[in-house]
This record gives sequence, structure tokens and C-alpha cells, in this order.
Amino acid sequence: MFEQIKVILVNTSHPGNIGGAARAMKNMGLHHLVLVNPKEFPHAEATARAAGAGDILESALVVDSLTTAISDCHFIVGTSARLRSVAWPLSDPRQCVDRLIPRLKDQQRIAFVFGNEQSGLSNEELSLCHAHLHIPCNEDFSSLNVAAAVQIVAYELRMSLHQNTPAELLYEMESKPITADEMERFFISLENCLIQLGYLKPSQPKKLMLRLRRLFNRAIIEENEMNILRGIINSIAERTVEKQ
Amino acid sequence: MFEQIKVILVNTSHPGNIGGAARAMKNMGLHHLVLVNPKEFPHAEATARAAGAGDILESALVVDSLTTAISDCHFIVGTSARLRSVAWPLSDPRQCVDRLIPRLKDQQRIAFVFGNEQSGLSNEELSLCHAHLHIPCNEDFSSLNVAAAVQIVAYELRMSLHQNTPAELLYEMESKPITADEMERFFISLENCLIQLGYLKPSQPKKLMLRLRRLFNRAIIEENEMNILRGIINSIAERTVEKQ
Repeated sequence: MFEQIKVILVNTSHPGNIGGAARAMKNMGLHHLVLVNPKEFPHAEATARAAGAGDILESALVVDSLTTAISDCHFIVGTSARLRSVAWPLSDPRQCVDRLIPRLKDQQRIAFVFGNEQSGLSNEELSLCHAHLHIPCNEDFSSLNVAAAVQIVAYELRMSLHQNTPAELLYEMESKPITADEMERFFISLENCLIQLGYLKPSQPKKLMLRLRRLFNRAIIEENEMNILRGIINSIAERTVEKQ
Repeated sequence: MFEQIKVILVNTSHPGNIGGAARAMKNMGLHHLVLVNPKEFPHAEATARAAGAGDILESALVVDSLTTAISDCHFIVGTSARLRSVAWPLSDPRQCVDRLIPRLKDQQRIAFVFGNEQSGLSNEELSLCHAHLHIPCNEDFSSLNVAAAVQIVAYELRMSLHQNTPAELLYEMESKPITADEMERFFISLENCLIQLGYLKPSQPKKLMLRLRRLFNRAIIEENEMNILRGIINSIAERTVEKQ
């Protein structure tokens, strides 16, 4: 099941942290590292901190957007140190991994996304995720090193996947899971639809799309539901007229 | 109970690892660091990797033997990456921390001992310990960075001692919950809207509303989201024309 899991580091500043994350991954049995716009990579310091995990760095994928990085994944977990203005389903690493087991058994691809050292993940990046993960820590000193955060999540994955956790299916799907890419195309057509309806004003978007992303990501849409939602959007496009 | 816990690093070679361990400790709420014959300390690299945990380094005790370091402790846990020729009570970090809870409640002082980067703890050092802790990892690549090992143990301590994430943090609502009655009224207006759009044919309803109920109930809609959904439905109602 480790093969189905990606670790995605976004805008990492220090190459040493990339190496540390690679080592943490390999120690726990993870392989797939994706780097979104790393500041410096490849880099001698990354290689040094990776120690014997140079193969993880060599096979790491470097891409220029988080959207590309997650496009083939079915479930996206964003790590967040801060409480956000828009609330999202939040769990600690143990709960999060427990809830992912049925998805992994269902052959879904899962991404864990870690933000930049200074600023973490942006609200926009977090809005691409189905769930947010918060690592419990000292409130007076909560800035966890990014390689340390990868270590904790990878450790929880190993603890869970290597124990014979009962295969209790926590949820039952009616149809297939969809990918982040399909979800993204839905949000774009939803946004266009709301603009056409005059409900979303591009000059004053407020947090409307963010709230709708939160709602639909929380529901974890599957294939037959996506077909319904697309059908409704198409009907709206056909039947509505500009306001007089 | 964090006050009763010491982290002891023995013969650490790389000062960066001492800094990384200090940061990991402070993140999780631990304070007491003891260094047994560190190769280089204090050191700029330790300070750099500690980030905001310089106070842990400043108050760290430097001693010349493990015996001195553990002298006032009641229970000593040694970390070990290897299986030893002499069997010792062995546990993973979670089991280990669980078993320590009664001792901590009993006001006992506990030490966690971490060995040198290359060789770990010697058999003699391990023989000073009451229990051995093994962090589960990939057997083909089991050399865990010492700061990463401290991070995992400190994280398990926090998860156990802090009864981790408070329930109200697990799911954070932005606004008020809504009642089943409001939800029911939403489904009725959604159904009327879909009929008006021509997407739902009352003569052939199939399972459309059932599927939409399943989707929106799963998301557990709250008040401000309900306002958005109502707004969208009203916009559709205003703008829809009959098909020619």
C-alpha cells in the first residue's frame, strides 16, 4: 500500500529539508516524492541529509504546480500548523491515517502535502485538499520542521499499514473514486456557472469558491455523483439567460 | 508530566542533530536535554537547526557518562535499531509510552536514551536500561536519523500525555449547525429547481434525489453553506427559461 502514497513538498526553501524528508520516507517504506517549485534542487545538502536515501531524491518528480502534483490522486491531505479562517475537517496524524486505510485497500492513490518552511500551505493550496492534518504540538512553539513533519506522518503510516488493522470498511462507495484533476475541472465549471448566473461576481468573489470547495471536498464526491453534478451544471448553462 | 522526562543523547557526532533534537523536543513540549560526550557542542550548526529552541540547548546538561546522566531517573528506556544478542524487553514507541503512563503518574522520572549516529548504543549502554525501544522501519533502510528518532518518541509522548487533539478541534465549524427541518426544506427547493431545469423528470425520478441526499447529508452542511446553496437555487429560479 506504500506504493499508493505520494509525499508532496511545496515551495521548500532549504534543500537539507528535502534530503531529510527523503530519508524519513525511505526509513518508513515510502517511495514517491514530488517537489513543487523547490527553491534549490538538486543540491549537495539535500543529498547529504538524505544519507542512504539518494534513490528517493533521484526518482523525485519536480513540477510547477500543486494541481499537477495531485492530478492523478484520489484523496489529498494537507498539513496545517495554523487554524484557518475557513474551517476544514481536521484530524491528527493517527486519526487521519486510520481513516485512509479503507481507501488504500480500495487501491486509491493518496497524497500528503507539506508547505513551505516559513508560511506553510496557502489557503488556496489547502482548498485543494479533502482533509487537513494537524500534528499536535506545543502551542508556544508550533513550527515543526518540514522533514520532522514528514517523519511523523510516515511513521504513523508504517504503524498502521504494518499492523493487521481490521479491514472494517468505514465507508461504502457506490461507484468509483474520482481524481483531483476531475474535481478541479468540476470546480472550474461550477465557478463559470455561478458567474453566468450572476451569483458570483468576479470583481467581488469573497470566499465563495473557497467555501464551496470546502463543502464538496468534505463530501468526497464519487463518480456517479460527479456525473449528476455535471449534468446539473450543463442544464443550468442551457436554460438560464442573462438578467435583463 | 513532560517535566519528568529527560532526553539523553550519547556521543552525538553531528551538532546539527543536537539542534534538530532540541527543536523536536520543544515542539512536542519536552524540555530536559542531556548530552553525554557530544563531539562538538556548543556549535553554530546546532543553534541553526534548533531554530526557536535555543533555550533547550542553553539549558542542556553536558556530562561525561551515561551513568551520570541517568543517575536521578527511575526508569530508563534505550533506543535500539538492531536486534541484540541478549534479548531485552522490546517495544515500539507507542507500547513503550503507554506502559510508562503509570510511572509518570507516580511522579517517576523517565529517561529516553539515544545513541551515536554510526553505532547506536553499545551493549554496555543498553544494559543500563530497563526497557529497549525499537522504532518500526523499513528493514532495508533502518538507520533512522537521531533527531528523527527523538521526534517520533516525543510525538508519541505528546499524543499520550496530552490526550492529543481535543474533540472540538477535530471538526471545526465555521457557523452554526442546521436542523433536519432546514435540510428538508433545502432538498424540496433543490428538487423543484431540478424539475424547473428539466434535469429531473417527475415521471422518471430514478434515484436522483436519493443520491443528492446522500451527498449533501454526508457533507453535514452548516448555516453559512446553506445560505450559499439557497442563494444559488434562487439565482437559478430567477434566470431559468422554458426550453423552446
